[in-house]
Amino acid sequence: MNRTLIANLPDHVGETVRVQGWLHATRALGRTNFVLLRDRSGVVQILTPPDDARGLPPRESVLDVEAQVARDARAALGVELHSPVLRIVAAAAAPPAVDLAKPDLTASWPFLLDHAPVSLRHASRQVAARLSAALVQGFRAALQSEGFVEVFTPKVLGTATEGGANVFQLDYFGRPAFLAQSPQFYKQMLVGALERVYEVGPVFRAEPHDTVRHLSQYTSLDVELGFIESWRDVAGVLQRVMAAMMTHAQPANPGVAVPPVPDPLPVVHFADALEMLGTALGANLAAEPDLAPAHERWLSRWAEEEYGSAFLLVVGYPLAHRPFYTHPDPERPGYSAGFDLLFRGQEIVTGGQRLHRYADYLAALTQRGWDPTPYASYLEAFQTGMPPHGGFAIGLERVVQKLVGAANVREVCLFPRDVHRLVP
Amino acid sequence: MNRTLIANLPDHVGETVRVQGWLHATRALGRTNFVLLRDRSGVVQILTPPDDARGLPPRESVLDVEAQVARDARAALGVELHSPVLRIVAAAAAPPAVDLAKPDLTASWPFLLDHAPVSLRHASRQVAARLSAALVQGFRAALQSEGFVEVFTPKVLGTATEGGANVFQLDYFGRPAFLAQSPQFYKQMLVGALERVYEVGPVFRAEPHDTVRHLSQYTSLDVELGFIESWRDVAGVLQRVMAAMMTHAQPANPGVAVPPVPDPLPVVHFADALEMLGTALGANLAAEPDLAPAHERWLSRWAEEEYGSAFLLVVGYPLAHRPFYTHPDPERPGYSAGFDLLFRGQEIVTGGQRLHRYADYLAALTQRGWDPTPYASYLEAFQTGMPPHGGFAIGLERVVQKLVGAANVREVCLFPRDVHRLVP
Repeated sequence: MNRTLIANLPDHVGETVRVQGWLHATRALGRTNFVLLRDRSGVVQILTPPDDARGLPPRESVLDVEAQVARDARAALGVELHSPVLRIVAAAAAPPAVDLAKPDLTASWPFLLDHAPVSLRHASRQVAARLSAALVQGFRAALQSEGFVEVFTPKVLGTATEGGANVFQLDYFGRPAFLAQSPQFYKQMLVGALERVYEVGPVFRAEPHDTVRHLSQYTSLDVELGFIESWRDVAGVLQRVMAAMMTHAQPANPGVAVPPVPDPLPVVHFADALEMLGTALGANLAAEPDLAPAHERWLSRWAEEEYGSAFLLVVGYPLAHRPFYTHPDPERPGYSAGFDLLFRGQEIVTGGQRLHRYADYLAALTQRGWDPTPYASYLEAFQTGMPPHGGFAIGLERVVQKLVGAANVREVCLFPRDVHRLVP
Repeated sequence: MNRTLIANLPDHVGETVRVQGWLHATRALGRTNFVLLRDRSGVVQILTPPDDARGLPPRESVLDVEAQVARDARAALGVELHSPVLRIVAAAAAPPAVDLAKPDLTASWPFLLDHAPVSLRHASRQVAARLSAALVQGFRAALQSEGFVEVFTPKVLGTATEGGANVFQLDYFGRPAFLAQSPQFYKQMLVGALERVYEVGPVFRAEPHDTVRHLSQYTSLDVELGFIESWRDVAGVLQRVMAAMMTHAQPANPGVAVPPVPDPLPVVHFADALEMLGTALGANLAAEPDLAPAHERWLSRWAEEEYGSAFLLVVGYPLAHRPFYTHPDPERPGYSAGFDLLFRGQEIVTGGQRLHRYADYLAALTQRGWDPTPYASYLEAFQTGMPPHGGFAIGLERVVQKLVGAANVREVCLFPRDVHRLVP
């Protein structure tokens, strides 16, 4: 007999079915015994003769059950199983480290993460995983429909060119090599070949700070496109991508409050943002090169009030504080054509227009006093003719964190990596 | 005026359009001058006044052109552009390192790979990239429709548990860590939580052999599912996944010969394969623990003749030669429930049924004389009850290599990594 998923049992009232799953819990109500069986779709209660209930192995053992589906209005599912024939497929060798039968997990986060193979069996720990998958599906669907090609780029690099700090070093056949902090250089070079590319992949930051926002490996959703007029074209793609991500997230997660994505995204210039913040907070912020987390939270609240938007695009960050490949704002000297997208008080996207002329790259490196030699391959792309282009990178875990309202980004990652955590 | 892609010009005969792209080449036919402009969709010839043609910057410069679309039966596209107004968007600072205007690239592969940002602009170098993207789309579509959840697992590990040899070591905040050779342990642990998972991601092998088949980073398409009856259920998923991959590959690449995927996949047992090989090659292979590349080629030719199939599933590899988590064949002692899928003479997939009982894992580790301590997290999943499960991993680059008939796997990778190559 084929397996029936528990969520589908209401379609089989009166039939004999076969279900398979984990022994979630047992319950005794007076003289009545229940076995609760869990599969990936839900939990069902099985009315069990006392003899059967006594011979049960530990919780989380895997069972195969043939039984009859009976309507029961008191059950959450509207049905329960009667007259079961229980078979133990794999007995658990020990009870679970985490009590999975409670509606909420009560252990500390370090304990839950240490025991991830068990704690991830709890429904509450799976929301973020399913949401991540749905968001990435939406991301790809939007880009696919606009002619972007998915690419796969190296994660091991010969030089630590893109920033310098916070890079992991490895031994590559006796030579030093470095883990990629982003696919930035590759996606730009590929604009010269494919014009529009995207990548979903891990990026690595040797982030020594133990904060609720940082992981040393996270999933970056990267986009780059050529033949733009300005950063506004990039922001347009971002709006459509973000809208598709939210649209895909909703049906997969009816319990999560998914906000609308305004078209166009509300925009504030960095200089105007500082001025508003200065007025509101009574401080002189005119010389600030970046936004502090408290500023991002204030601006998000402002966007919520002013535009009814959970999203706010801050554009024009000071050029000196952005990466060397950032394009200047042609109309406001000192400011860049770079942006961040804030979502519910936190930066979840960085992007903008990039330099595209070879001479501009040489000037940008010279101005920083950097030797262009390690950048030779990257520079060859610009030397050989590159269109105006731009792109962005979305931090997947941060989007999920803000969607589910998790206090710590580690809570929405299956197996997080940070300065202390390498296992499991 | 909005940009028109070159491939769409035949829809605009008689209209004035705007095209944008790279100066692919110039041609003088008698007194007539042509500029060839290339974008991501194709190449168009532009009838150019002599004065315009003389003032042109180097090849690969980026141009913006407004012109009239005129029918021309001699042009490959069926149209050409007349009366152009040419604007130089970004002049190339040097001619391209590779001659991109020839129908075939003639430089050596090391040279082409060294100059990847330029050589990838050649149409011949983009076939594999577009094919890879289409195959991965098919992979995901098949799994999505069968209830699999996409996951993102750590690529940096605290222990080099899965094999030991050929692992890259890195400095993780002063501690040793290792790059993941596969998501094997994670996808198995996640079967306990989500039952059916898949991942598309980079894996890393410190492969010291400089062969045409090995990369030190490649893209692994990983699948794992619980509640199987035997390896045959896993092979069924593999058949459907592979069929979807080929279906997606075809329209994206009309020039590539995409073979049908028989349902079910033709199967030969490892012992029978050795017997056939022994008879055919006149050698005693009875004690061989694995298939040599020449054996795989012979078996593929045999499957082509016997079944008309480019695919052959070899099952039952000797247990001693497979990883410790491999499930034995319940009917043939010494043989495993593990398989490889051969495609046109090469192994492109490894998979099978895994052990699922905690005691079996302890016995497998003990038999190898391995300390179970570093495996504690992994073992916790089995200790806490795991269903019979299995899965497989597809090496994306190898599939592409065989589809396009490339002699070397490096040819189908955008920026390959091997024992010598770390740049670009």
